[in-house]
Amino acid sequence: MQIEIWSDVVCPWCYIGKRRLESALAGFEHADEVEIVWRSFQLDPDAPREATETIATHLGRKYGGGPEAGRQMIDRVTGIAAGEGLAFDYHDAQRASTVDAHRLLHLALAEGGPALQGELKERLLDAYFVDARNPADRAVLSEAAVAVGLREERVAAVLDSDEYADEVAADAAQAAAYGATGVPFFVVDRRYGVSGAQPSELFGELLERAWADSHPLVQVVGGDDAEACGPDGCAT
Amino acid sequence: MQIEIWSDVVCPWCYIGKRRLESALAGFEHADEVEIVWRSFQLDPDAPREATETIATHLGRKYGGGPEAGRQMIDRVTGIAAGEGLAFDYHDAQRASTVDAHRLLHLALAEGGPALQGELKERLLDAYFVDARNPADRAVLSEAAVAVGLREERVAAVLDSDEYADEVAADAAQAAAYGATGVPFFVVDRRYGVSGAQPSELFGELLERAWADSHPLVQVVGGDDAEACGPDGCAT
Repeated sequence: MQIEIWSDVVCPWCYIGKRRLESALAGFEHADEVEIVWRSFQLDPDAPREATETIATHLGRKYGGGPEAGRQMIDRVTGIAAGEGLAFDYHDAQRASTVDAHRLLHLALAEGGPALQGELKERLLDAYFVDARNPADRAVLSEAAVAVGLREERVAAVLDSDEYADEVAADAAQAAAYGATGVPFFVVDRRYGVSGAQPSELFGELLERAWADSHPLVQVVGGDDAEACGPDGCAT
Repeated sequence: MQIEIWSDVVCPWCYIGKRRLESALAGFEHADEVEIVWRSFQLDPDAPREATETIATHLGRKYGGGPEAGRQMIDRVTGIAAGEGLAFDYHDAQRASTVDAHRLLHLALAEGGPALQGELKERLLDAYFVDARNPADRAVLSEAAVAVGLREERVAAVLDSDEYADEVAADAAQAAAYGATGVPFFVVDRRYGVSGAQPSELFGELLERAWADSHPLVQVVGGDDAEACGPDGCAT
């Protein structure tokens, strides 16, 4: 089974949804046969590569109410995150482009597969939401990528080029094709989609359903009274 | 899509069920993408290779009432077959083993694929039910096989050996694994089973359902009010 998750590294519901899915997987008998692949989604594609303001300031300006309103939005989601064991503290994080983070996530997938990509995804989310680090900062990105085992020179080469930019764009196009306008967006076996950080119980039901689908038993229509012939003759 | 059909060439409900499925396929938009494979099932594995009595006599002896009771059983199913456009007239057909017929059906599948196998299956059913020919007779079998395009020497070589006997036995074992004790038994994409000559409407519904299954659209759980982030911000 494969779960593709469209997500951004600066999306609070994505991190919360990740924990809820992980909670469902912890109770799922066949979790070791589930592969998770992270797909790119830029929540704020206009965000600059060079940060100019904090996310709280940006939110307050975009939705009104100033920095204090922005901080209150962050406070609300921080409270929900705490319920999932996540210690969000990102009021002072910078608003900045996540395209380079997504390009490194594609590098991790290409070089180390879904397991390595998953480690990098967790580190990048943690860097932003817990440590309020700049998601576009080269040192932050490189440190996370090297920490999970990617070669420093290879990471630098990707950051110095536009390698994997096409893959990031292709992921966005696929999300649009599925009709997804927000994240997290989960797709199981290209068959079921889940929009948003749903309760872990819902993820659990979905895992069971998708498992049954990919391991079909033949369900027989018609029974002993069917118009059929057997060792005891033909029904007439 | 693949439909496997366990069936015997001396099973009246199998021929009737074949027509009902064909009727459903005639009204199915994607019929050209459906492949039918015939699987072996011997309804009367104790039947001798050398015929010693008619099927009417055998039925009357096995279920009581003598040849006349056997003829009445045949009359009842003949009436139902007429409703499907089949002119059954097999009161005087011989009771005999169908293992050689099944071995030739495997030969046809191996040498010409499902289409050729389907032609041979139709000929063998017609020979028995319409022309009351002996299903174990070498001339009857060879004539049918050559008529659909199999090489006469190859057919003779199979009939002179026990080639494909293992495949016939494997089909029977698979039917048992599915819990099928009678035929016809239809299995669609190894996912759905149908026991008996069900109405063509049921086959039609099954075709639509199986088609939808093999061409999944992503069904999204969660909507606009999901806990997600989008271009207009994060739900809180």
